[in-house]
Amino acid sequence: MENIAPKPIPLKHVAIEGGFWAERQRVNRERTIPAIYRKLEETGRIKAWSGIRTHEMPRERSVVHMFWDSDTGKWLESVAYSLATHPDPELKSIADELIDAIEGAQQGDGYLNTYFPLLDPAGKWANLRDWHELYNAGHLIEGAVAYFQATGERKMLEVLRRFADCIDATFGAEEGKLRGYPGHPEIELALVKLYRETGEERYLELARYFVDERGRAPHYFDLEAAKRGESREDFWAQTYRYCQAHAPLREQTEANGHAVRACYLYAGIADIALETGDEELLTLSRRLWDDLTQRQMYLHGGVGPSHSNEGFTFAYDMPTETAYAETCAAIALAFWAQRMFHLDPDSRYIDIMERAIYNGSLSGLSLDGVGFFYANPLAAYPGVNPMGRWSGILDSGHFRRVDWFFCPCCPPNISRLIASIGEYSYSQQGSRIYVQLYHENSVTLAIGGQSLRLEQVTEYPWDGAIAFQVNAEQPLSFELALRIPDWCGEFAVSLNGVRQAVSVEKGYALVSREWTDGDRLELLLAMPVERVLPHREIRQVAGQVALQRGPLIYCLEEADNGPRLANVCIPSTAKLEAVFDGELFGGVAVIDGEALRIEPSPENSALYRFHSREQVAESAFRFRAIPYYLWANREPGEMRVWLRSC
Amino acid sequence: MENIAPKPIPLKHVAIEGGFWAERQRVNRERTIPAIYRKLEETGRIKAWSGIRTHEMPRERSVVHMFWDSDTGKWLESVAYSLATHPDPELKSIADELIDAIEGAQQGDGYLNTYFPLLDPAGKWANLRDWHELYNAGHLIEGAVAYFQATGERKMLEVLRRFADCIDATFGAEEGKLRGYPGHPEIELALVKLYRETGEERYLELARYFVDERGRAPHYFDLEAAKRGESREDFWAQTYRYCQAHAPLREQTEANGHAVRACYLYAGIADIALETGDEELLTLSRRLWDDLTQRQMYLHGGVGPSHSNEGFTFAYDMPTETAYAETCAAIALAFWAQRMFHLDPDSRYIDIMERAIYNGSLSGLSLDGVGFFYANPLAAYPGVNPMGRWSGILDSGHFRRVDWFFCPCCPPNISRLIASIGEYSYSQQGSRIYVQLYHENSVTLAIGGQSLRLEQVTEYPWDGAIAFQVNAEQPLSFELALRIPDWCGEFAVSLNGVRQAVSVEKGYALVSREWTDGDRLELLLAMPVERVLPHREIRQVAGQVALQRGPLIYCLEEADNGPRLANVCIPSTAKLEAVFDGELFGGVAVIDGEALRIEPSPENSALYRFHSREQVAESAFRFRAIPYYLWANREPGEMRVWLRSC
Repeated sequence: MENIAPKPIPLKHVAIEGGFWAERQRVNRERTIPAIYRKLEETGRIKAWSGIRTHEMPRERSVVHMFWDSDTGKWLESVAYSLATHPDPELKSIADELIDAIEGAQQGDGYLNTYFPLLDPAGKWANLRDWHELYNAGHLIEGAVAYFQATGERKMLEVLRRFADCIDATFGAEEGKLRGYPGHPEIELALVKLYRETGEERYLELARYFVDERGRAPHYFDLEAAKRGESREDFWAQTYRYCQAHAPLREQTEANGHAVRACYLYAGIADIALETGDEELLTLSRRLWDDLTQRQMYLHGGVGPSHSNEGFTFAYDMPTETAYAETCAAIALAFWAQRMFHLDPDSRYIDIMERAIYNGSLSGLSLDGVGFFYANPLAAYPGVNPMGRWSGILDSGHFRRVDWFFCPCCPPNISRLIASIGEYSYSQQGSRIYVQLYHENSVTLAIGGQSLRLEQVTEYPWDGAIAFQVNAEQPLSFELALRIPDWCGEFAVSLNGVRQAVSVEKGYALVSREWTDGDRLELLLAMPVERVLPHREIRQVAGQVALQRGPLIYCLEEADNGPRLANVCIPSTAKLEAVFDGELFGGVAVIDGEALRIEPSPENSALYRFHSREQVAESAFRFRAIPYYLWANREPGEMRVWLRSC
Repeated sequence: MENIAPKPIPLKHVAIEGGFWAERQRVNRERTIPAIYRKLEETGRIKAWSGIRTHEMPRERSVVHMFWDSDTGKWLESVAYSLATHPDPELKSIADELIDAIEGAQQGDGYLNTYFPLLDPAGKWANLRDWHELYNAGHLIEGAVAYFQATGERKMLEVLRRFADCIDATFGAEEGKLRGYPGHPEIELALVKLYRETGEERYLELARYFVDERGRAPHYFDLEAAKRGESREDFWAQTYRYCQAHAPLREQTEANGHAVRACYLYAGIADIALETGDEELLTLSRRLWDDLTQRQMYLHGGVGPSHSNEGFTFAYDMPTETAYAETCAAIALAFWAQRMFHLDPDSRYIDIMERAIYNGSLSGLSLDGVGFFYANPLAAYPGVNPMGRWSGILDSGHFRRVDWFFCPCCPPNISRLIASIGEYSYSQQGSRIYVQLYHENSVTLAIGGQSLRLEQVTEYPWDGAIAFQVNAEQPLSFELALRIPDWCGEFAVSLNGVRQAVSVEKGYALVSREWTDGDRLELLLAMPVERVLPHREIRQVAGQVALQRGPLIYCLEEADNGPRLANVCIPSTAKLEAVFDGELFGGVAVIDGEALRIEPSPENSALYRFHSREQVAESAFRFRAIPYYLWANREPGEMRVWLRSC
């Protein structure tokens, strides 16, 4: 084993032409990417770039205008990933036109923003705490790097390098620079991407500076507030925990505040730790990871239960109906998870990456690709809206996916994740190939100057049988490291039909040999329906059970099971059966089983009844659970992940 | 039976010198009333009255200044009730000085307000929807009527008559008047009180006008908003449901919006129905009552689950930890309940009045009389604050009573309720005396020109034995109507030691005879511990059970039962025992019983566990439940009313 860190196998080398993700990517290309572009246009976000030069302002000025550029950046990034594997000249020409406009909007000093130059010139860099210039920069940088990697064209990359240089000239510990850092982290991980692509160490150093300066005294957010004539107490969020700046980062022990900010920041820290070998940052990353994933993560990989701060509250606090669990936060957790693996190779990170992708992230998009969730609750009831109960009161309707948000961070985020799923599928460390995600695809590997193609054939996540077919011109030695997921209790490996004894190291079954063309490795992951019980401190679902099969969390919907799901109980002895339904949602495995409905008869309309005078009635019925990520794709109704256990 | 409606027996005729309420009234007099006065002083509310004349402004201008006068009004009302039964020259002189200042603040046209004359003269009557002038007026009128009834002194009453005349001259359906009505109802019931005290029908007519005009088209709140240059859409609460003005009142079918506004309004409607004999208002009252109490009321009589609108959401929506259930709303429900009884004599109203008083209202005050709850949740967990999860995030502390609020409507409200409890104890309808609340007291009755004194001797609510001792100079015929509470399954009546067969009519056991001095009537209400089950639509507590004994709801606190109350299960077969603990809280009945703690061992720290690999452990323990209204009077910790049933 070479003593270097594993890296993802790039997107371009992973061809996805069938199976679970091919269909999701097709919908993303054909529906989601165009739909988001239309919204960017309609809302003035596209026109704002040329408007900077022509002084034509967008139709309406809104309080989220300061964050507009991040939406463009993420959309461009999604387009880049899509173009990388599915070239589309028409889409590319739209992107190129946008890139020209972005280039045209750049100021002489490299500054790039559609809000401040015309709408508030004096506001430039005046409020890093709230005004998102560096957050926008990060997303534009990510888009630029992705676009260069997809197309080989440098224009966008050069524009963003100039902006990064402008930022580097403005912020830092050196004399004459502002000691600022972003209120909404994101640029840290983007700068590491820019460093990796360009080899320019200043970008890595700038990212490291942002991490090191964060939360230090004298507090930059205090200083800049004073310059604006405000005091610390005027901060709407009341606490710098909101933006993970309440203490120097290396002293922090818990995941805090706004969940998306937190996970982007932590992902950036992991990147910096990997690139710099900073042991303290590795320790910090593990500490924050353990806190978040062992005390503050929903079963579906969503994080941040609270609407009020879009973020964390306290350990084991897991409200279900009102779970915020922002789509972006689950996605950011997946980003962080992958980086943690590369920093500290262990399947436990990828297990959570898979959980967050297949459940709390994917639920953010409708099956038809044009409906989005911002919040991803674990139970739904008419009139309850996890985006704030108020909304529910107004319309008393069902919480449904919508086609856009006032602050539309989630739509392009889920779009870019789907477009780039190939990049999460494998990691390589010298001659060891980690298989991270199981799904139908074909990966081209380069090992010691030679290449081979490995085909992965599987119905995963509907089935646990996975076959790897080797296509190689000549024999090639390498090690396959097959992730054995945390939910899997039993597995078997066969090579060319012969059962193999394999060792498992840090969650990976290792198969090392000289592979030849036509070799077929089969992995069978037992995938029974699992009953999941919550930690004893999770009060909201005490005494309840959830169903999981393979990487998928399941839920009951009213469409299959009728209303009043709170009265449904799953007996601990109930036989639970996974059944593939080829018709439903284009083909999914559902879970069927016996349940009890325990409730008083409808004749008794008393709000409260005395036990001694009346017992409840039990009736058995056959329930059907569907994968959680597919909820709210049929007629509106109740939904529940956690069910009473009896 | 005379064909007239029953009326409360006035406060002054009910002497409370011992038992449950004597102690609460003592604490109210000695601690609560002075503490509230100090806060009124500290915050500038007292000084504001003289400031109107001297042009000295209160120290700081705050957004709640517009509501200040209501706090003064309620405090004065509480003082009046207290003086009525417990004269206190020192307290009276403080009140008289305040009344002088109020008189001095009155404008030439009778207008009375500490905000608008100096701070926003142009704002006078410009925003009835939000600016609470009529709400303030209502509370001042209530205070004035109570003060006159307590002291016989007319000054405050005359000041408020002039203000009522000013309001009457300003608002109404007549040509030249504004067709306005209050955004925050309250003045309706106050005007009926003023009418009853003065005999001036204009006040009743004005109250009726406010009710009839409410929600009519063209909508007054639209018109006045247009005058201010605003549109309907600018209304922060988004919907006139918030203030029960979304439709003409007579067309409304559900309790809606802000709960305190709703219940004050509904109480006023009941008053008007009673005084005018308006059958449609009676029907409306019954419809709203049934909706609210059969579909939207917490077990403790609290109403309005939502923090966002301080009010109602939808039927059967009963979150526990985040229950807003404002103290003022439970009190307002008790007010309404009493009025419903007088309109439609039936014990079902008083059953709910008792429930709201002993549980969701009384919980609003600490045992020491100087700590207040605004919200009254049915479960508590460190870090969760029903006043908004945000607060909990900031301090991660326990939700505790505090000594004041920014908007301090609740403290003087619970104070005036306690001071006036005597007025809720009996109603009289000719020669029928309804006993509404059981507690140690002595009532002076006037029947057909003769009087007698009836002593009620009881340990209620700790015990269901109640004795009535007759003190009369000569024999007197009347009927005692003894309320048989809804929670009571069995009762017995004895007269002078001889068991009586009694008939029960609309929830009252009737005992009619010629009573003579020394007669002793004994009522025994069986008071077992009751298990209460929720309606099948209340999803938040499905499968859970609550404990009630007599009128009191019980809860478990961490102080008695350790943490993780969500894992405590009450077996349906568990023996539950009421035990009087003479030490605890000055003497209360607690409930002891066997429970199970069902949870995995602490060694297993996994956030989610697979059922097939590990079972949970059960351990039996003896639990202790205390009356809900006494929670949060010891060391902070968890609390739960609803417990898992097994």
